[in-house]
Amino acid sequence: MVPTTLNDLLLDGLRDVYHAEKQVVKALPQLARAASNPALGRAFEDHLEDTKRQVARLEEAFQLLGATARGKRCKGMEGLLEEGKEFLESGGSDPVLDAGIIAGAQKVEHYEMATYGCLITWAETLGEVEVAHLLEQSLDEEKTADELLTHLAEEGVNALAARGDGTD
Amino acid sequence: MVPTTLNDLLLDGLRDVYHAEKQVVKALPQLARAASNPALGRAFEDHLEDTKRQVARLEEAFQLLGATARGKRCKGMEGLLEEGKEFLESGGSDPVLDAGIIAGAQKVEHYEMATYGCLITWAETLGEVEVAHLLEQSLDEEKTADELLTHLAEEGVNALAARGDGTD
Repeated sequence: MVPTTLNDLLLDGLRDVYHAEKQVVKALPQLARAASNPALGRAFEDHLEDTKRQVARLEEAFQLLGATARGKRCKGMEGLLEEGKEFLESGGSDPVLDAGIIAGAQKVEHYEMATYGCLITWAETLGEVEVAHLLEQSLDEEKTADELLTHLAEEGVNALAARGDGTD
Repeated sequence: MVPTTLNDLLLDGLRDVYHAEKQVVKALPQLARAASNPALGRAFEDHLEDTKRQVARLEEAFQLLGATARGKRCKGMEGLLEEGKEFLESGGSDPVLDAGIIAGAQKVEHYEMATYGCLITWAETLGEVEVAHLLEQSLDEEKTADELLTHLAEEGVNALAARGDGTD
């Protein structure tokens, strides 16, 4: 599709992030299993529930715009998840792996924050207030998840990784 | 390289972002040429100068850590730039193209913000104060560039894109 209007761009962006969020739904359980820090594992499990709600909100946004809910291959997110997968398979030791998993997950959160931020301003410009409101809820969840990951890194995971072992 | 220490992770992350920034140095002139809004074009030209400084700072960081400055293929950034390239080639009309270019560039900025954020906390944990200080300057530049893009979108580009023409 050639985007000739801002409405096209909004729909195109929604399809991109719809595909991206569905990929994240598949990736989060792997991250939760790979995390050795229990709080980090729980953070990923909780964010999986957020992400499922975000997928549902995107379906609602498509409906509000009178469009079919369908994804569009999102190469940006594919690259980020591929990078994360390679890291998980690199065979690093537990606390260092946790620190690296957090970094990968924060790249994903930031991708989504940038995306939702743009989609919200486009929806607002187009007067699509309900769509903007739905996406703002998802943006807030992404920001909260990102802040929690920073907190977990700074309050324990990084220090353990610097010591190079998983003991307390 | 299997990252077994936080120092490995820091070096690995520096190599990843070193490769990423070099890709951005190549991409920014294309974005500057593609932008129809003059202020947007200038923003990309200015950010190219920032990015060259960021590459030089990374080389300084490698030196401080006693490591060779070399990149590591960054699939995350590759995916983001590939997505942006496809958009540029989609043949959209001027103001809509500008709005989409901003969105793609903000994904790139956010990738770098997430990356520098993690690298700074790792460098601080390891007591690498000078490295952290260098990367903080780059993080601040990324945040400023991201805010400028939001400003340009909200103060003109999006409204023009909604009208579907490039006239004032």
